[in-house]
Amino acid sequence: MTDAPVCVGVDVGGTKVLAGIVADTGRVVRTARRSTPGRRVERLAVEDALVAAVEEVAAGAPLLAVGLAAAGFVDAAGERVMFAPHLPWHGEPVRELLADRLGAPVALDNDANCAALAEWTYGAARGAASALVVTLGTGIGGALVLDGRVLRGANGMAGEFGHMKVVPEGQPCPCGGAGCWEQYSSGNALVRYARERVGREPSLLEEACGGDPALLTGPMVTAAAEEGDLVARQAFHSVGDWLGIGLANLVAAFDPAVLVVGGGVSAAGDRLLEPARAALQRSLVGSADRVVPRVLAARLGPEAGLVGAAVLARSIR
Amino acid sequence: MTDAPVCVGVDVGGTKVLAGIVADTGRVVRTARRSTPGRRVERLAVEDALVAAVEEVAAGAPLLAVGLAAAGFVDAAGERVMFAPHLPWHGEPVRELLADRLGAPVALDNDANCAALAEWTYGAARGAASALVVTLGTGIGGALVLDGRVLRGANGMAGEFGHMKVVPEGQPCPCGGAGCWEQYSSGNALVRYARERVGREPSLLEEACGGDPALLTGPMVTAAAEEGDLVARQAFHSVGDWLGIGLANLVAAFDPAVLVVGGGVSAAGDRLLEPARAALQRSLVGSADRVVPRVLAARLGPEAGLVGAAVLARSIR
Repeated sequence: MTDAPVCVGVDVGGTKVLAGIVADTGRVVRTARRSTPGRRVERLAVEDALVAAVEEVAAGAPLLAVGLAAAGFVDAAGERVMFAPHLPWHGEPVRELLADRLGAPVALDNDANCAALAEWTYGAARGAASALVVTLGTGIGGALVLDGRVLRGANGMAGEFGHMKVVPEGQPCPCGGAGCWEQYSSGNALVRYARERVGREPSLLEEACGGDPALLTGPMVTAAAEEGDLVARQAFHSVGDWLGIGLANLVAAFDPAVLVVGGGVSAAGDRLLEPARAALQRSLVGSADRVVPRVLAARLGPEAGLVGAAVLARSIR
Repeated sequence: MTDAPVCVGVDVGGTKVLAGIVADTGRVVRTARRSTPGRRVERLAVEDALVAAVEEVAAGAPLLAVGLAAAGFVDAAGERVMFAPHLPWHGEPVRELLADRLGAPVALDNDANCAALAEWTYGAARGAASALVVTLGTGIGGALVLDGRVLRGANGMAGEFGHMKVVPEGQPCPCGGAGCWEQYSSGNALVRYARERVGREPSLLEEACGGDPALLTGPMVTAAAEEGDLVARQAFHSVGDWLGIGLANLVAAFDPAVLVVGGGVSAAGDRLLEPARAALQRSLVGSADRVVPRVLAARLGPEAGLVGAAVLARSIR
């Protein structure tokens, strides 16, 4: 007896490959994981890890289709990973290479787009006519989903919301610019806000970092905020306030039906989202006379990329 | 003998109704104009003017369909003009009312969306996979055209680019906010930049305004710039610089294939567009490693709304 053919979703990140089978309900049925050796090694090592993870999770069942969510910049055609800070690809036709190795059709997109597709299909934005999803991690990723499809842009580069400038001559950004939104609303911004105040105001953070603000980390700020520390809470408030200001800009431009906020920082929940909602209401043009979209916490967590990749796979099976 | 049935486009503005027949080539074959009495009078007077202009331009031919470009906020369904600063509608089902009066199918959208559709169909953005059109007049209007369709948004309010905040606590805006992009890049901004310098630096503008900067107007700044006046040219440069900064934000978000700049201020051509292109290149994330979209002058001029309305009409005939 042969197993029923399966669709597999794969999240290819800088430290691991996570392959999974996702039920039609969105539930992750099972996963297989391989560590990835990073960009300094042969790309074959990453591709081997990917193929091994897919084969493990398929467990002998034929492959109907495979979706890949890559932590990097994917070209407009969905064929190549043009550049990825933590992966060894730079322009290879990854989709075709892996379709050949796997013997199955492959669809490719970047992880932020896949996560947004997953939130639209199964998560907080389920079935919305349009959804704008932003992911707050080290920086800000994001995507707009229109009628169930991600807006990819002419070069596959739509959704770089984190590098919209919100402060002229503002904080320098690793992108080479200054005043980028993600310098004010992200995990990095959270830590910076806390650092700026530690030592000037009494705070649990002073002990947490051993008196050296340079040693502060996001998890320290999160823990202190949970214990009621005012400096840590103020740092979250600032991140949330700037989140709402940037979201207001995106709503003015896109007018989405719903806003979804995911990523590690969003685990803070309403500590982040309440100031964001207030700033959105305050900052959005004509907010008194229009429908202001809801700001919802993402629902799928760290598996969103994997789930979105499985949705992609199903779209081409 | 009966005339062949016609599609009519109508641009309904604060001071006039302009109806027209537009050939399949985009050429405006003929127009009819009526003045509109503004929002203080009965809406019937505007509707009468509109019907009269349509009938005049149809010249006895049966109406296949009519498209309306309204200078106001049109709901997501394209049924109602919710609010228009210079028109007497506030929530009436304008599409249906006029379809009944005209005895023909009517399609309705706002004028910025119609102008963008016209530029995509016949103008500078012709046939582009995606085009972002901004219109610099008193403020900034605009729209994104994707695969030949305008992104209207969940509430019909997408494209409010002029009210994206680019300066925290910046210039106050009539919208009630502060730091809105259109306070830095628009006809109003042009005049403000000139006012700030007149009297401090030698300038033709001093004579033009009779020594009172409050009396400066956009056309005075345009005329002085054409004569080589440095203050006037610097004002255009500032508007263009901010234009490019805002366009960079929009490119980061949408990644359109092409950018089109229209509206009265854009008549300055490269005096405006060259600094805009330079600022876009400087301000856009990753511009060294990506395709930076071209910044083109709109081609259809003040009839863009009318032409777009005719395109709308043809889409429902």
